[in-house]
Parts: sequence; C-alpha cells; structure tokens
Amino acid sequence: MVRFDLIAFDADDTLWHNERLYLQTQTRLAVLLVTYGIDRPTLEESLYQTEIQNIRVFGYGMKSFTLSMIETAVALTGGKLSGQHVLAIIELARAQLNAPVDLLENVLETVPRLATRHPLMVITKGDLLDQETKLARSGLGEFFRDIEVVSDKTPQSYAALFKNHTLNPENVLMVGDSLRSDILPILELGGHAVFIPYPGSWRHEAAATPAPGTPHFYQLEQLCQLPGVLDQLEGQVN
Amino acid sequence: MVRFDLIAFDADDTLWHNERLYLQTQTRLAVLLVTYGIDRPTLEESLYQTEIQNIRVFGYGMKSFTLSMIETAVALTGGKLSGQHVLAIIELARAQLNAPVDLLENVLETVPRLATRHPLMVITKGDLLDQETKLARSGLGEFFRDIEVVSDKTPQSYAALFKNHTLNPENVLMVGDSLRSDILPILELGGHAVFIPYPGSWRHEAAATPAPGTPHFYQLEQLCQLPGVLDQLEGQVN
Repeated sequence: MVRFDLIAFDADDTLWHNERLYLQTQTRLAVLLVTYGIDRPTLEESLYQTEIQNIRVFGYGMKSFTLSMIETAVALTGGKLSGQHVLAIIELARAQLNAPVDLLENVLETVPRLATRHPLMVITKGDLLDQETKLARSGLGEFFRDIEVVSDKTPQSYAALFKNHTLNPENVLMVGDSLRSDILPILELGGHAVFIPYPGSWRHEAAATPAPGTPHFYQLEQLCQLPGVLDQLEGQVN
Repeated sequence: MVRFDLIAFDADDTLWHNERLYLQTQTRLAVLLVTYGIDRPTLEESLYQTEIQNIRVFGYGMKSFTLSMIETAVALTGGKLSGQHVLAIIELARAQLNAPVDLLENVLETVPRLATRHPLMVITKGDLLDQETKLARSGLGEFFRDIEVVSDKTPQSYAALFKNHTLNPENVLMVGDSLRSDILPILELGGHAVFIPYPGSWRHEAAATPAPGTPHFYQLEQLCQLPGVLDQLEGQVN
C-alpha cells in the first residue's frame, strides 16, 4: 500500500491536444512551401533535424519551433523565401499559441475528482507563458497547486524539483504521454508512473516501453481509468 | 530588527551584464539593415513597438526578441529582407545566447559571502534554459538554492512563488535593477527591496523611483554594499 503526496501531470498531449496543433502548423507551412517546389517529406525531415539542433540553444516549445520553421524554410528555398512568407510563418506561430485549448477525453471530469484526494501539479518543458495561459484557458487552473517548467525532463531535473517541494519521489505519481520524458526518469527515481500513450506523438519523445510487470509502471488508455488505479494502490477512499 | 529567510536576485543586469548584449545584437542588426537604407532610430522605435506587442503572445526573453527582430526587419524592408539576412538574424541570436557570462563588478566576491548567511534564489522572467545555462556558466550556480522563472514579475506572481516556498514576503529581500519588476511588486507585498540601477536599462522596465525614506527600500551602487546593509538590518553576524 502506498499513499501519494502528489500527482504530477505532463500537460501537452496528456491534458490537452498539442501535437496535432504542431502538425496542423506544419501542414500550413508545407502548403506555403509548395509554391517553391518543396515536397512534404523533405520539409519534415529537414525541419526535424533543425529542431533537434536548435533544442540545445533555444530549448523546447513553440518559439524554438518557430525559429526552426523559419530557418528550415529559408534553407530549403535556397534563400528565396519571401518576406511575406517569413511573416506568414510567424503568424502561424501566433495562431497556434492562441488556439483554443482542446482537452483530451475525460480530462474535464477526472481532474477535479483527482484534486479532491491529492495535490496536483503540472510539470512541463514548454514555454512558461504558453503553458500558464493554456492551463488558465483550459478551465482546470484551480485544480492544480503548481505549474512547473523544466528545461529538460531528466532524473536530475525531476529530483531537484521534488527536493524543492520537499517531496519524496517514491510518494509521487507522474502521468504523461512520453516514455522518455514523463515515465522513465520517474521510475528511475523510485516514483510511480502512469503512461497514457498519445497517438502520433513526436518521435523525439520515443523510447522503449518498460517490460510488462515493471514495478510502479502502469499503462492506461484514458485518464478516467486513473482513479481506479489509485483505489488499488492506495486502498479505497470514500 | 528583521531576519531574512531568503535573498532573491534578479539575474540579467543584476548579476551579469545583459542589456549590453541586446544592444550589441541590435547594433549588428542595424549594420545589416543599412544596406536597405534603414536608419537606426527608425529601427529602434519599430523594434521596440514590435517587442511590446509580442510580449503578450511570445513572452520575455531572447527567443521572443529574435522573432521581433525578424518581424521588424521584414516589415521595415518592405518584405525585401533576403533569406541570408533572415538566417543572419537567427545567428545573432545564437551568438548572444552563447556569449560568455560577464559578471557585474563585485558579484563574484559578494555572492558567496551572502550565501554563507542566507539561502539565495534567482527570480527571472527570461527563458528558463537560457537563464539556467547562464547561471551554470557564471560559476555561481552552487551558491543559489533555486532558479525560478516567472512569466511576468507582478505582486501576484511573486506572492504565488513565495507561497510555494512557504516564505513570508516580509522576510524576503529582493535585489534587482528594475523598479517596475524587481522593486515595486516586492514593496507592495511588504518585502524588502534593494535597487541597484543599471546604466541604460531597457525602457520597458522604467518606473518612478520610490520617495527617499520609503520603508524597506534601499538603493545601492554596487552589490558589495549589500552585506553592510544586512548588518544594519539584521544586526552584525560573525
């Protein structure tokens, strides 16, 4: 029997749809670049490589992605990308950042229920302002005690964060859609991790799934299954 | 007599030079735009207006500034900015983010001294990754318990942050170069604030200086004067 002191959530593609906004933006960029004779697979591969390069200097999140889109578009067009199209790419970014927050199924019902039994926290590696406004616009802000942004999700960064909050990792349960960022580092620290895969998630986040029966690891299809898991782990709470 | 539980620092232009890196980047942008017949005052005014507009969506920090540089340059050149120059602007950003950390005078000697009597924290509104790597490269990382990034520095955001760390604002002393962001919100919360003006700081951060004799407000010329102020406020510590 365990008693959790905190349930931590990844946000993008765990609480709300995110990857499909990136794909939509990427589709719009592809449409814009068709006039330069650039095909979509070429764009996608080149953009991915630029993103990975840029993470080291610019980090994660939409602004870094936008700089990567501009850089890739200029490079692929051999410098011929028009000024209007540069501005259009920045507009794509603005549109994505202002897009309505589209919650995943059951999140709206399940989060308040979870908040009655545990403090909740968002731990994300996006841009702070973007994540804060999304949480506020989601209508779920009041149920989360904290929103924490880390520059990368590693055992070290989680350990430092939990230490700041005087939390023992063994009493933390983390929910997320990325094995690499949300699940494996938490298991390494002795915490519990709930993996809810998101179809078509970013390939940078891919990692091998832990073997069936790995202690502290649970894979669910939807967030609404989490209260049942908590009942099993902690005992029924009325 | 007061006893502080924490000394919090702004980072940019409080611990290390920052504004002059922005000015250097802006000078390089101006040089690049001379070939398009754009004069520096026009560039500066237009860039400032774009920055202020973009803060709402893109937030503070270097990535937001870079998007503003690109947007301004395209607009001022009537869309004629070449692809090579777009890439050159992104290179300017990369160069600034990788620039050596240049500490302000006396910081290297004073911070370790302060760390022996109080926990130290950095509170900043830049990009998290950028601020983390600057703190690490500065050689001062070990003296700071935490680095906290907020999307804006308001009484509300400080209050939430202090609450998370179970700190009473009245027992916090904040050191910074911006009246608007580092000093006035802290005074409003009942905390103590040490203002160390930085010559030529960004005009967005300007505000009226508190009247002489304002309680809890201290203006210094250099950080090395802070231990003396602490001696006066807290009594001598040996």
